[in-house]
Amino acid sequence: MSWSQREITLRPRPRGVHLVTAEIVDALPELKDLDIGLAHLFIRHTSASLTLNENASPDVRRDFETWFNAAVPEDFAWTHTLEGADDMPAHVKAALMGSSLTLPISNGRLALGTWQGIYLCEHRDSGGPRRIVATLNGE
Amino acid sequence: MSWSQREITLRPRPRGVHLVTAEIVDALPELKDLDIGLAHLFIRHTSASLTLNENASPDVRRDFETWFNAAVPEDFAWTHTLEGADDMPAHVKAALMGSSLTLPISNGRLALGTWQGIYLCEHRDSGGPRRIVATLNGE
Amino acid sequence: MSWSQREITLRPRPRGVHLVTAEIVDALPELKDLDIGLAHLFIRHTSASLTLNENASPDVRRDFETWFNAAVPEDFAWTHTLEGADDMPAHVKAALMGSSLTLPISNGRLALGTWQGIYLCEHRDSGGPRRIVATLNGE
Repeated sequence: MSWSQREITLRPRPRGVHLVTAEIVDALPELKDLDIGLAHLFIRHTSASLTLNENASPDVRRDFETWFNAAVPEDFAWTHTLEGADDMPAHVKAALMGSSLTLPISNGRLALGTWQGIYLCEHRDSGGPRRIVATLNGE
Repeated sequence: MSWSQREITLRPRPRGVHLVTAEIVDALPELKDLDIGLAHLFIRHTSASLTLNENASPDVRRDFETWFNAAVPEDFAWTHTLEGADDMPAHVKAALMGSSLTLPISNGRLALGTWQGIYLCEHRDSGGPRRIVATLNGE
Repeated sequence: MSWSQREITLRPRPRGVHLVTAEIVDALPELKDLDIGLAHLFIRHTSASLTLNENASPDVRRDFETWFNAAVPEDFAWTHTLEGADDMPAHVKAALMGSSLTLPISNGRLALGTWQGIYLCEHRDSGGPRRIVATLNGE
């Protein structure tokens, strides 16, 4: 049984949905030591989020951005507007998508389905680098 | 302390929201060995999701389907349409509901509230069987 | 390595979004014994939810309530109306936000980002006290 924890800093990305599976996995060499376990990825921000979705087509990621912008528009009856028009929608989108992922580990690898990839959802126009706390536990 | 992991295959279900608590619990006999722990259920797909909600009224599950279809309609400015009109809405719904559940275990049972049940949300018209990775950890 | 589990009862709050970080942390003295670990918070209800978001401005929490009421309105084609106009929207909102949070523990504290706080989202007009099962695991 072992625990490990490390912080991963994702470089700044433009507003939108970005596939970061390889970047995350490469930062977690401890994965290969676990036969069974869980990997917990936690984003330490309130205007970006983590989710799992289709890892093949860039169209899917573009359509995510389009739908979320329509569902949580900048033009709404927001009162919290001090930090820019993209700020309050970013907070709501982050709550809808969530700030963490818990992923099963099997035989030293993330047990993702064939089509599953890790999305970093950047909801701000200029969000800057994003910090992830990765906590692994298993045996 | 112990870890266990198994794959559960849920039989194909029609598009909609389905209560699967009993099916999941029956597939996890290891639950009864844990006084305190966590059960992690992970669906290895990007167009179906897992959530917890009201376990009594079929009306609630029908209303879920109605609301999600209205909020994430097939008739939208999607560009990813190659796999059918139900595909891209399925991806967005899956992200909104989430691909995993982490549930507390107490005294050999899932510590769900009285009204909580596990929902399989099938977002495709014909999604086929759905694979769940169940990881249990506790003492 | 250690496991602990306890139930926390949050006092009744009005419909809306409430910051409960301090109340949760104060109820978990076991946090300080863990160098690395995870805290799992689970709400045993289907019409209230837990999420993480901005911990400073009450405007953000008011805007959450406004947006969710617009996105999941009481005036919709609901069939499950027996328990009041606020009931079915509460179930959908609870599924969108989620019923649990898994938070990293580092050096005896929750490793939240500077701006992250724990929100109790009360979706009923009179939801009553809300029960949380908190499960901690770490070393």
